[in-house]
Amino acid sequence: MVFEKVDVQPAYHLVASNIEKCIMQGIYKVGQQLPSELDLAKQLGVNRSTVREAIRVLEQSGLVFRKSARRLVISLPREQELASRVSQAMILHEITFLELWETMLPLEVRASELAAIRATDEEIERLEVNLRETADCLEHEQKLVALDIEFHLLVAKASRNRALLLAREPIGLLFYPAFYQVMSRLNAKDRLLSAHREVVNGIRNRDPKHAAQWMEKHIKDFRRGYELADLDMNQPVDNSSYFE
Amino acid sequence: MVFEKVDVQPAYHLVASNIEKCIMQGIYKVGQQLPSELDLAKQLGVNRSTVREAIRVLEQSGLVFRKSARRLVISLPREQELASRVSQAMILHEITFLELWETMLPLEVRASELAAIRATDEEIERLEVNLRETADCLEHEQKLVALDIEFHLLVAKASRNRALLLAREPIGLLFYPAFYQVMSRLNAKDRLLSAHREVVNGIRNRDPKHAAQWMEKHIKDFRRGYELADLDMNQPVDNSSYFE
Repeated sequence: MVFEKVDVQPAYHLVASNIEKCIMQGIYKVGQQLPSELDLAKQLGVNRSTVREAIRVLEQSGLVFRKSARRLVISLPREQELASRVSQAMILHEITFLELWETMLPLEVRASELAAIRATDEEIERLEVNLRETADCLEHEQKLVALDIEFHLLVAKASRNRALLLAREPIGLLFYPAFYQVMSRLNAKDRLLSAHREVVNGIRNRDPKHAAQWMEKHIKDFRRGYELADLDMNQPVDNSSYFE
Repeated sequence: MVFEKVDVQPAYHLVASNIEKCIMQGIYKVGQQLPSELDLAKQLGVNRSTVREAIRVLEQSGLVFRKSARRLVISLPREQELASRVSQAMILHEITFLELWETMLPLEVRASELAAIRATDEEIERLEVNLRETADCLEHEQKLVALDIEFHLLVAKASRNRALLLAREPIGLLFYPAFYQVMSRLNAKDRLLSAHREVVNGIRNRDPKHAAQWMEKHIKDFRRGYELADLDMNQPVDNSSYFE
């Protein structure tokens, strides 16, 4: 054997990574318009159809947004979409509740500490609204789960840390819905509400320790609830809510 | 105005999410073969070219792998690729060193704790090899950064927690290379090596507290080094190494 197999990348792949590199190096900035497909084809020495396929790849990864038939604009990948892609991978990897819990605990504690330092008045107000709505929904489990997810997302956003948000979002998408099963089996609702209240107290009073302490207690309660409800933490997390 | 604008999704998009849903619900499992493009086109009532575009989208997101011209197989999205997609978003969002640091601290501490509980003998051996190589490379900054990244990845892997791995990987891709600038300005290499040593001691002796304590010290040193080197933590992190 003299020749090694050649790793032939399809042309549209090469074109896509070429354009991607220009975006990542800031040669094209977010909000700027890309040249037309025809111009790109000329510059890159490929067919227009190849460019069109490459653009689709870039649209798919959120780097390019087609404003109209002929206007391609550089865009920021949306957090929501990235998060759901990562959650998807977690489902396919059959990630367990224990894995989610072990990772969520330090992230949520950290988020609550930072929120106590940085939350704006408006963010605190939104947390208070969430508390009131939660108090009114204690008997409605599905609404309660939605409010619980919102609560934790509000705290995380108030941390003003986008790395933290990006890291926790895909875990949150699977973690909190998994708790639905616990709530429908145990009466943990009052504990949930009072823990949320104390976290908000810590944030309002600019007391990171208080917020962190109650968040830790709260997330540890999740695990205990899971065990008390006789759910197996080492099994892949129930993801049926993901498909609703 | 009577009619609302219709949100027309391109056909290949609809086909892609249709197939994606089947994969996520486990109707097609990882490793299984998808029907041929022709069969899919017939079943879904669309052109074969539409199916081909949809498959490209799925290949792009790592859900489908083309084994040969005609064999499409369901695959697990690769962690590496997901991570680099998230890092990319962080760069475009101009994430700061402070944001990365605030998130990395609790994740690395947690990883070291779990590693002390779960690391296999083989994983501990690999950590020891990394320590020896680090000791031999103290004067070669670029190698040192590569070994530092490897060290933290080895610890994270030894945690046997895939949610943690998925959450920290994109941050790690930006965080440790950013420290290169610090190392080239300060003489922090001995501190780095001795902290790594103590973390490994904690892991080897099954002492989560010791591992966690030294990991915390170590990551806090990163921040201090950044400040001592007169780098601005509130500026977007230097990402030039990302493009090498």
